[in-house]
Amino acid sequence: MNSPAEPSVRRPRKPRAGGEVARNPLTPDTWIEAATEVLVNQGIDHVRVDLLAQQLGVTRGSFYWHFKDREDLLRRVLQAWRETATENLTVRLESAHADPLEQLRDVLSLPFRGRAAARAARIELAIRAWARRDQMARFAVDEADASRIGYIAQLFSAIGFPVLEARARAFMLYGYIVSESQMPSLSTEAQKQERRAFAERLFTQRLAPPGA
Amino acid sequence: MNSPAEPSVRRPRKPRAGGEVARNPLTPDTWIEAATEVLVNQGIDHVRVDLLAQQLGVTRGSFYWHFKDREDLLRRVLQAWRETATENLTVRLESAHADPLEQLRDVLSLPFRGRAAARAARIELAIRAWARRDQMARFAVDEADASRIGYIAQLFSAIGFPVLEARARAFMLYGYIVSESQMPSLSTEAQKQERRAFAERLFTQRLAPPGA
Repeated sequence: MNSPAEPSVRRPRKPRAGGEVARNPLTPDTWIEAATEVLVNQGIDHVRVDLLAQQLGVTRGSFYWHFKDREDLLRRVLQAWRETATENLTVRLESAHADPLEQLRDVLSLPFRGRAAARAARIELAIRAWARRDQMARFAVDEADASRIGYIAQLFSAIGFPVLEARARAFMLYGYIVSESQMPSLSTEAQKQERRAFAERLFTQRLAPPGA
Repeated sequence: MNSPAEPSVRRPRKPRAGGEVARNPLTPDTWIEAATEVLVNQGIDHVRVDLLAQQLGVTRGSFYWHFKDREDLLRRVLQAWRETATENLTVRLESAHADPLEQLRDVLSLPFRGRAAARAARIELAIRAWARRDQMARFAVDEADASRIGYIAQLFSAIGFPVLEARARAFMLYGYIVSESQMPSLSTEAQKQERRAFAERLFTQRLAPPGA
């Protein structure tokens, strides 16, 4: 089963046009995206090589052309998630604004970016659910949380908060945006926008001295 | 299959002592707890009447003595979760302290109550994952979130914040405690305690007027 066989399509192939296969380009990404879809819609137990192959209209053997085994596919699902959800994100935010307060505003706007944000939230919740029962997914989720909180903490530090306080603020702001993503149906759009403006003020305001 | 049959235990029963069956009292709660365990450890697809009956050592028919069907069991799993997670909680907090600020401190301490809190967090995450794909679970989760946020908002109102601001603060504080529950491995105990004290100050501090 583990032989790196040339992918063979089950149903009759259309003639190639311009060197491209019309259906089933069958890059690793095709498998990774299909696996992610199944994870989100049906849960991790349904991510099976035989079912994915069937769905993609290829033989099971063609899977092993790109992946060592199911575990290898799952690892790359997590890797792909991390890249889109975290690494690309922080790079994009950093390059968009030099001003840390502007970057923070961008972070606060993340849950409100329409369908892309809703989709990202669904993938993330599926991966968090999987991480309850799987150590590899657990590591990936912890790493993503830590790196996002670390990035946000850096912004609070750049604004001028002491290091420990910056981390606490980052954790809370992160908790807030995760909650906005995970509880989209609790509030109207107007309430969300009002809350977002309020969050910006609350999280960036200096604490009064105790007893003040 | 839907006949309300007397439960019959497969393995040889011990003689009754004091009118009690030693194993398998087989109350509805026994089924509900077993179903919740399977939901948490394996996911909703594995919650099946035949497997639960096998696990509890009773016939499948005995299930229908207490429940109309699987859907009925699932509804009562959600109901049981809501009662422990939300209703009992708010009643307990309300009766423990008359002072709203003390009640708020109690809310902030919820994620740090050891194994009970960890178990509650695992159940809740499993139910949130289920709610991504099931409308009944979705309603239950939304209702629980709304009623907890409503309770916390009431506390902020009692402390003296305007109604809308109290709701925004409640949402953020709730996001914070959900995050502490869902990301337990990111921080040391000392960091968590420090953050909790900071959260209390941040969330209860009045906003400075804009531009101050």
